[in-house]
Amino acid sequence: MDFTEKTISGERIYSGKVINVDVEEVGLPNGKTSKRELVRHPGAVAVIAVTKENNIVMVRQYRKALEKEILEIPAGKMEAGEEPHVTAGRELEEETGYKPLALKKIASFYTAPGFCDELVHLYEADIDKPGRPFTDEDEFVQVEEISLQEAEEAVQQNLIHDAKTMYAVQYLRLRINEQ
Amino acid sequence: MDFTEKTISGERIYSGKVINVDVEEVGLPNGKTSKRELVRHPGAVAVIAVTKENNIVMVRQYRKALEKEILEIPAGKMEAGEEPHVTAGRELEEETGYKPLALKKIASFYTAPGFCDELVHLYEADIDKPGRPFTDEDEFVQVEEISLQEAEEAVQQNLIHDAKTMYAVQYLRLRINEQ
Repeated sequence: MDFTEKTISGERIYSGKVINVDVEEVGLPNGKTSKRELVRHPGAVAVIAVTKENNIVMVRQYRKALEKEILEIPAGKMEAGEEPHVTAGRELEEETGYKPLALKKIASFYTAPGFCDELVHLYEADIDKPGRPFTDEDEFVQVEEISLQEAEEAVQQNLIHDAKTMYAVQYLRLRINEQ
Repeated sequence: MDFTEKTISGERIYSGKVINVDVEEVGLPNGKTSKRELVRHPGAVAVIAVTKENNIVMVRQYRKALEKEILEIPAGKMEAGEEPHVTAGRELEEETGYKPLALKKIASFYTAPGFCDELVHLYEADIDKPGRPFTDEDEFVQVEEISLQEAEEAVQQNLIHDAKTMYAVQYLRLRINEQ
């Protein structure tokens, strides 16, 4: 059965700095119509970086959407025309000062497919010594390096509380257990 | 250091069926201001259900935001005033016909904390025999039951392609490996 929802009409409700919002009237498989609210996002990257001391490089930052600080793996949105691995290297260095020696793609996932097209590309970076972070002027992050066990505890405490970082912590646990 | 971003002014750009969109002017820690685009979402649940035959209950559905079909674990947004475990039981039964015998909370995660407050509550359900699904009138889903290995292959093929489902697949793999 073909479940495709064809766009009958659409309207751009909002054009922003990070997101655009469209509302579309779609035709359903049963011949009826429905309204879909769609957030358009340029896509993002996230980076798992483990130090020689076996700590995960995290950034603590205030998330206005949540009105609280959380610990996340370094991440950022893709600039127009930028390849994901380039974004990954750039964001890691800007936010943490670590320059990646090598980057390996781990996974890509849509974060909220019910209403948003944001695709996050997850990389693992080989890193050497950290340099000096240089974040964007409207971005305030604090680097924290924690062990995998501390990360798992931070998940329990809702200090790590976002899908990409929780996926990354699980990924590292799986890999260590399989060794 | 206090990274809190205080709201100076805000405007509701869009009030929708699923999401609302706010644009806020915020005060930054350095005294400057910036604009934050914020998508408000009521929150959602997702359910891991494994059959007696050791297959994961998945639903195939067309996602307009992605313009394609993907395989996901059963999920849905919370209705006003609804407790997450109630949503979990309701969505599982509506989408798949399986009535949960018991529900266990596994995790909660923000899907896109950079711009959206959607929090997904992930449950694991004990299930018995399936009944008959009864989805919403604008929702078309097809139930598919696949093994963990098939799910991991579906991840490789980008047929499973969203964070909550990929997190769930990793969760099941971790648990099986730890047995």
